[in-house]
Amino acid sequence: MIKFIKNGTVTNVKGFKAAGLHCGIKKKRKDLALIFSEELCVSAGAFTLNKVKAAPLIISQKIIKSKNKVRAVLINSGNANACTGEQGRADAIDAQKYCALKLGVKLNEVLISSTGVIGKRLNVDAIKGGVDKIIPILSKSGGIDAAEAILTTDTFKKTFAIRTKLSCGEITLGAICKGSGMIMPNMATMLAFICSDVEIEQTLLRNALSLAVKDSFNKISVDGETSTNDMVIALCNGASKVKIMGKNNDYSIFVNALSVLCKEMAKSIIHDGEGATKFITVNVINARTDKDADLVAKQICNSPLVKTAFYGEQPNWGRIISAAGNSGASFAPEKAIIKLNSLTILEKNFKTTFKEKEAQKVFGKKEVELEINLNAGKKSTTWWTCDYSTKYIDINANYLT
Amino acid sequence: MIKFIKNGTVTNVKGFKAAGLHCGIKKKRKDLALIFSEELCVSAGAFTLNKVKAAPLIISQKIIKSKNKVRAVLINSGNANACTGEQGRADAIDAQKYCALKLGVKLNEVLISSTGVIGKRLNVDAIKGGVDKIIPILSKSGGIDAAEAILTTDTFKKTFAIRTKLSCGEITLGAICKGSGMIMPNMATMLAFICSDVEIEQTLLRNALSLAVKDSFNKISVDGETSTNDMVIALCNGASKVKIMGKNNDYSIFVNALSVLCKEMAKSIIHDGEGATKFITVNVINARTDKDADLVAKQICNSPLVKTAFYGEQPNWGRIISAAGNSGASFAPEKAIIKLNSLTILEKNFKTTFKEKEAQKVFGKKEVELEINLNAGKKSTTWWTCDYSTKYIDINANYLT
Repeated sequence: MIKFIKNGTVTNVKGFKAAGLHCGIKKKRKDLALIFSEELCVSAGAFTLNKVKAAPLIISQKIIKSKNKVRAVLINSGNANACTGEQGRADAIDAQKYCALKLGVKLNEVLISSTGVIGKRLNVDAIKGGVDKIIPILSKSGGIDAAEAILTTDTFKKTFAIRTKLSCGEITLGAICKGSGMIMPNMATMLAFICSDVEIEQTLLRNALSLAVKDSFNKISVDGETSTNDMVIALCNGASKVKIMGKNNDYSIFVNALSVLCKEMAKSIIHDGEGATKFITVNVINARTDKDADLVAKQICNSPLVKTAFYGEQPNWGRIISAAGNSGASFAPEKAIIKLNSLTILEKNFKTTFKEKEAQKVFGKKEVELEINLNAGKKSTTWWTCDYSTKYIDINANYLT
Repeated sequence: MIKFIKNGTVTNVKGFKAAGLHCGIKKKRKDLALIFSEELCVSAGAFTLNKVKAAPLIISQKIIKSKNKVRAVLINSGNANACTGEQGRADAIDAQKYCALKLGVKLNEVLISSTGVIGKRLNVDAIKGGVDKIIPILSKSGGIDAAEAILTTDTFKKTFAIRTKLSCGEITLGAICKGSGMIMPNMATMLAFICSDVEIEQTLLRNALSLAVKDSFNKISVDGETSTNDMVIALCNGASKVKIMGKNNDYSIFVNALSVLCKEMAKSIIHDGEGATKFITVNVINARTDKDADLVAKQICNSPLVKTAFYGEQPNWGRIISAAGNSGASFAPEKAIIKLNSLTILEKNFKTTFKEKEAQKVFGKKEVELEINLNAGKKSTTWWTCDYSTKYIDINANYLT
């Protein structure tokens, strides 16, 4: 049983405090967040596969790879500190050091993360000034401000918390995330920070996170892009005193809770897709293999022609089947069946009997569920994406990433 | 030496006639083309890799795979006859049969090809009526009409002819093609028909065409899509009496001429990219391997963020290097150098010293040359693409493919 906490966030989790404020990287909006745990945390992370990695990402990835426990995550928006070379590395360490010093913790207990413009030098002085101000206001209600401070082109805060019961007690998981454009499997311009009070070993947490990410963040796509700064980080401080002893039933419950949380975050990112007017759930069913199911879903989610058809509210099954045909998956096109919500827009042998009027009704909704039945096996998958609007072009032609 | 023939087309080639007219598939515009050779031709083809293949494509592919010589190609636009099942196959054969009968040639001497809307039944009666009218007007000046009749969302006719000298005489190559959206390696919504009067064996022609396509049509991308109907067909009727005897110097000259012609066609398709405002040549140099060079070029050409940056006239090297980083190619990002025309927008170690004003000048031009030097080896490649504009979205949200 998973219980969602209304307006929940990272600070709903025992032993975690947070805060967010404006330090001067952006003109006016909040641009610095700090998440802090009273106890040492085990950590796990998933990081961008882009060959071009931002300085703060490399630093945090190294800490998480090691067995060091951590206490805090310092996140700035407005500047990605990516493609900044040696100077960028020095700047990141400078900010990290200053934060550790002021928090009174070890250097390697502070994770750092950045998002925003690429290739510009980070304003470390602004961050240091921000650190001075943010530490005194760390609080049990600051998660929402932190969620706001990590946003870039996002149009709303993304913050969640859930509770679930393990065999010897209740645990809480809270999370904040950001990301709207450049979303694509294997981490896009997105950051997600998950906190839990469960007690768990690092290896188990890593396995759990990797399973949860696989079924959530790795199954969304806004525009097929993957960025230099993306990371999902999970911190567990054990403050609930509820311990997962191994890969037992409690572990399964935890993995499920983590997956639910990650899916909620992933979907919220798609809901905020740049210029998006439609939220599209893509269900691929009866694929020959899991890989085939994902290939078809990914190709559909990344197809500009499918995405513009949804924007134009066209039940254009031709573009959908053509995208599936390009995916590399093994199936017989004439056996495929395509549905929009419950309306069948393509029957076997390329038959169509639906009425245009019915299709209009489907598109009247902001959320559309697309199902493609390949009739080639028994495997299935669910991905999420959004449409391509003229606004997407405007945002990205004019925004300096 | 290759000589371009001004306003040249397929009918500049000895022994080929052509015509184009309106038969009634489209409302008003020309929609039926016929290319006819007085002599039997050897043929070669390259076809879509999409699993969903149109009926006429399957039929033509089978003929070309066999050793049958051919006489004619009948092409309609306005309807792709794709995803039309058994009925579509029967309709295609019906049209093909009727055309063969009226031309007085064998069924398997007529290739057929379609482009346009997917999933609607072909109006065979319109085509038959068109065949009755088009045969009498086949002429040595009809290539231009044929070029017009194969267009869909294209905004201009794409027609070319070149002459070159082999050891024992001159040969001519003429071609018409179409395609504007959905262009992506391995044949997109594009058709290309190449005619030559050279005398050549089928195996040699196939090798030559495959080399030419690899360096032209397989290196362009409008939006990363690949369609159900795409084909490049080459027909050689030997009317020049100039024979290529094997893989000798004449063969090399012919391959080069064919490549030049295919590149011209590929570039004309990019020039006509849906909603495109910029023609972008992407040169990847000093890659570790040929594969790496192509991976980087392809990723850049397909990146919505790079394409929207060009539309917005931003010298956004961050998006370019990030796309390269996502390509899977092996290189050290800090060693990369990026140029726009001759302006260096990224130096080694992520340094930038260019002036915004200079970049504005580059973008003042409709044609932009992007060079990324990976400094990882000695391999290079050239691809062509265009930008993403709000018009691309409009066209594809409202056009029923």
